[in-house]
Amino acid sequence: MGVSGCGKSTIGKLLAQELDIPFFDGDDFHPESNIQKMSNGQALNDADRQGWLETLNDLAKQQLAKNSCVIVCSALKQKYRDTLSLNINAETNWVYLSGSFNQIFDRLNSREGHFMPSELLISQFETLEDPKDALKIDITLTPENIIRTIKSGLMNTSEFGLFGLGVMGKSLCRNLANNGFKISMFNRHVAGVEVDVAKNFKAEYSELSHAKAFDDIAAFVNSLQQPRRIMLMVNAGKTIDYVIEDLLPYLSENDIIIDGGNSNYKKTKERNTYLKTKGIHFIGTGVSGGEEGALKGPSIMPSGDKEAYKNVAQFLETISAKDKNGLPCCTYVGPEGSGQFIKMVHNGVEYVEMQLLAEVATILESLGQNPDDIANTLDSWKATANSYLLEITATIFRKKEGDDWLVNKILDKAGNKGTGNWTTIASAELGVPSTLIASALFSRYISFYKEERVQLNKNFENSNTSELNVTTNDILEAYQFARIINHYQGFKLISEASNKFEWHLNLSEIARIWTNGCIIRSTLMEDLVAVFKHTTNILTNPELINKVNNYKSSAKKVVSECILNDVTTPALAEAIQFLNGITTKYASANIIQAQRDYFGAHTYQRLDDDSGKSYHSNWN
Amino acid sequence: MGVSGCGKSTIGKLLAQELDIPFFDGDDFHPESNIQKMSNGQALNDADRQGWLETLNDLAKQQLAKNSCVIVCSALKQKYRDTLSLNINAETNWVYLSGSFNQIFDRLNSREGHFMPSELLISQFETLEDPKDALKIDITLTPENIIRTIKSGLMNTSEFGLFGLGVMGKSLCRNLANNGFKISMFNRHVAGVEVDVAKNFKAEYSELSHAKAFDDIAAFVNSLQQPRRIMLMVNAGKTIDYVIEDLLPYLSENDIIIDGGNSNYKKTKERNTYLKTKGIHFIGTGVSGGEEGALKGPSIMPSGDKEAYKNVAQFLETISAKDKNGLPCCTYVGPEGSGQFIKMVHNGVEYVEMQLLAEVATILESLGQNPDDIANTLDSWKATANSYLLEITATIFRKKEGDDWLVNKILDKAGNKGTGNWTTIASAELGVPSTLIASALFSRYISFYKEERVQLNKNFENSNTSELNVTTNDILEAYQFARIINHYQGFKLISEASNKFEWHLNLSEIARIWTNGCIIRSTLMEDLVAVFKHTTNILTNPELINKVNNYKSSAKKVVSECILNDVTTPALAEAIQFLNGITTKYASANIIQAQRDYFGAHTYQRLDDDSGKSYHSNWN
Repeated sequence: MGVSGCGKSTIGKLLAQELDIPFFDGDDFHPESNIQKMSNGQALNDADRQGWLETLNDLAKQQLAKNSCVIVCSALKQKYRDTLSLNINAETNWVYLSGSFNQIFDRLNSREGHFMPSELLISQFETLEDPKDALKIDITLTPENIIRTIKSGLMNTSEFGLFGLGVMGKSLCRNLANNGFKISMFNRHVAGVEVDVAKNFKAEYSELSHAKAFDDIAAFVNSLQQPRRIMLMVNAGKTIDYVIEDLLPYLSENDIIIDGGNSNYKKTKERNTYLKTKGIHFIGTGVSGGEEGALKGPSIMPSGDKEAYKNVAQFLETISAKDKNGLPCCTYVGPEGSGQFIKMVHNGVEYVEMQLLAEVATILESLGQNPDDIANTLDSWKATANSYLLEITATIFRKKEGDDWLVNKILDKAGNKGTGNWTTIASAELGVPSTLIASALFSRYISFYKEERVQLNKNFENSNTSELNVTTNDILEAYQFARIINHYQGFKLISEASNKFEWHLNLSEIARIWTNGCIIRSTLMEDLVAVFKHTTNILTNPELINKVNNYKSSAKKVVSECILNDVTTPALAEAIQFLNGITTKYASANIIQAQRDYFGAHTYQRLDDDSGKSYHSNWN
Repeated sequence: MGVSGCGKSTIGKLLAQELDIPFFDGDDFHPESNIQKMSNGQALNDADRQGWLETLNDLAKQQLAKNSCVIVCSALKQKYRDTLSLNINAETNWVYLSGSFNQIFDRLNSREGHFMPSELLISQFETLEDPKDALKIDITLTPENIIRTIKSGLMNTSEFGLFGLGVMGKSLCRNLANNGFKISMFNRHVAGVEVDVAKNFKAEYSELSHAKAFDDIAAFVNSLQQPRRIMLMVNAGKTIDYVIEDLLPYLSENDIIIDGGNSNYKKTKERNTYLKTKGIHFIGTGVSGGEEGALKGPSIMPSGDKEAYKNVAQFLETISAKDKNGLPCCTYVGPEGSGQFIKMVHNGVEYVEMQLLAEVATILESLGQNPDDIANTLDSWKATANSYLLEITATIFRKKEGDDWLVNKILDKAGNKGTGNWTTIASAELGVPSTLIASALFSRYISFYKEERVQLNKNFENSNTSELNVTTNDILEAYQFARIINHYQGFKLISEASNKFEWHLNLSEIARIWTNGCIIRSTLMEDLVAVFKHTTNILTNPELINKVNNYKSSAKKVVSECILNDVTTPALAEAIQFLNGITTKYASANIIQAQRDYFGAHTYQRLDDDSGKSYHSNWN
């Protein structure tokens, strides 16, 4: 229902199509006399309408006897609606397409061939009695959104459930609601600790006025459309399993659970397999962007059952960040826990990017730069090496507290939440040398031994001469050099995992969804989208080869100077070692093999026999 | 039984004590007439003996009615023995202490106050009828060995079972047999592949003539004394669990399973817990020394149930290597999987020691040294930096094949069996920065990408100028520097695990059992035995502090020169980075914390507030 020009026919047809039931336009059932009257510019009176309304009521009854149908009709007065739903009141759902006079007037004036003159719109609005029991829809929404809203509204259920209202969960709820999705939100009740979290959260933000808030699992689950979509934003680890067990009794076949936490990719695979036995779909997805990204558009990396993904794609892709071409920074990554895997590697690469910036800042400080100087230097690098992390690091160095810079007051013990740790473990398990990620992880670990560092500092001489013979441009090039090696290693790990697990991952797509919304977005990442269209190994790309070759001498200079002056730069240093290693035709591993054969009879292969045959020697 | 002077009384008393049953010396039961006759130098005739033998037979019957006893008696003729065991034949076990005339004559002449003149020994040997159903014991064995042999012999069972006859299992069997232990050996039967492995192995070595060989699990288990001691030398991993399940149906309460493979320490703990529910003890033990060490004396690192260890200590400690004071390189390490843990770290340290030697050799090669030169250089280092690995590496470099050195013909792809990988994982999991182990592991991984290396080698410029401005002494000092850091890291990992798991490990004892038998034995390890008596942190030891400070400038020089000349030395380089990191009063981790707080609201602590309070800033 709604005034002429509100879009009833368009929406009604789409809805009928979506629900797979017949569609009827009430106007098609006017008696000839009514049509004539309207064509002559005369408004119909109630007597004119009575027979027509009864015809439509009969039509509805006939259709209901079979199944159901969509009938569109202006139905402006309550008594018209009473006639229309006579004796089928309980089975009738009213949808009211609501717009302002000006909106609809503009629409009508722009459409041709309609038999009702626009002037009649005034009388329509005068006649219109707002329905009290109808689903009221804002006609400025897109048709798709209107259909979705009607569907969920008619069923009086939510389209999407968000379980766990921590920092990330809350931001995702607001993001979903801002995008017009009808959501249910759940947070557990812990007496005295977590009370009415969901309700209070709902009350805090106007965009959540239509969201439903729960602290009871059964009610939460029952509020969702089937197949249900429930996204978990709870602490990764055992909690996920507990939550799944809590949910299971209330779920129905083909419901979909989405795990948006930093879960271990192996666990995601296990859960996938387990839930399959229960008839439940499981989608593990990485979500990157922090609190702000989750609210405004994160990078989302879903994986698991591809068919089930189609059922949640609209939600995840709508709330995600968009790349430079407007495409969502969310794509179906691959099967099993591949989404969690690439999120883990994302975080590993992030560890290194952060560590490189910390090392760079240390070198700049050794050159005598104060935090403002460092910020200026980093700002000047945006032209050639920009990234989100570079930007925020520059901002961080500018931040003052009183007369001093805040960064100088922060305790030098770095925390970690486990993903860098996992990446290092995955790298060790898969036989892929992610040396920079390990280096960045271990640098955090070393920092954590603050008390020991302070004690040992007294025992060991440290020149710290600040006589580094390097320019800021040398440092920039060393930084760019190491970043390329970092991205090589990160994508190498993904590529090898993809081969091993037969995930068939698309590296270019992964780089693309990392160009916005996530923490490691950068101009380099933009470049990699194109690079990965032609290769899985960025060190075979001519432009990157040139860059590496151009930057290497600066990297060597910077690192050797730092070593001679006791400036600690483990990741920058390792980048050089790694490039040398991975481009060495003859490595020193022949010596390792000889040693292993000597003491453990582990055998070796020979350069002059590529058959793979094993040899053993008596070395004495 | 046995001729006078064979040691019946001594052994009989010890045996009675060991079995906790009464002891009787048959000579004490002679009637006065017999004693008189012997004192006069006259041999007893059979009539003289009959009543006396009957007395002893009565004694045996009385004792058997209560429990059991040990009676010693020369019992030279079969008919004497028949009288002695009359009506208790099935319950009687004959032990025959056998020696040559000369052996026993010498013994008798050296003992005083015995009432039988030595000359009678001739008639004893003339009278002696070798028993057919007795356990025949060589009297040249030590009393302890004799007692053990009697015990196992009486029960007609083996003292120790070895399950799995691979390289290590075979060496351990021979080691056990060489030490006089009575063993059962098992290897599975796989038709056409592994057939009669145990039997053929037994036939191959004379020391195994008393060992029992099986390919049937039930027979193998039943051949063992209770509580049974079964050492598994099978592939680590799932196989261990399968073997345990195969064994369980045949085991009895308090039997002991020893896992001597490189099992993961977490699995060892799980198995320990699982087997406890079955009433079976489980001991996980590291064994290091390779094929030769296992045969001649490995370093052994047992852990698990301490009480159960006491029951296997004699075996493991006897076959182990001995330290410079003659003490076994085998000690009860601690509870759970602590033995497997320290073996894992041992192997991690080993990876690094091997890698450092490979890097050193690469540098020496860059200086123009050929393999013989390198061997000479390494030999010259033995005076100050000796280790087993240094020795074998020198030997390796001398080895020629035709006109060329064999080491030059070995394919440069390093293998690994997983322990370096596990150490890196444990390090990541426990939050301990074992950077050198990761570096050595990843160097092997990098070497494994041979095809990619060869391909990438074409893309990147590599100076390889061989213009290194370093002396061999610089390299030696850099090597010694890195080795100290390596040992710091290895023991740090052990120490942190010990704290976390409450294992209460004794680092000095661990260093001590690594001074011989194992792959990382070295003069440095000898030094650490003393160092760890005073500290758990070797970088607080004044002598090592001096060494590190003295060596560091060489290390810096060598590594910076290598970097400038594209000589790959990841582990040497990382040693410097690590020392700088762990001795830095103010690390750059404050920057990391600021970044984490910026994008993830992860909060930070402040230098000026040691309360541990978390701060969050709006950085923009």
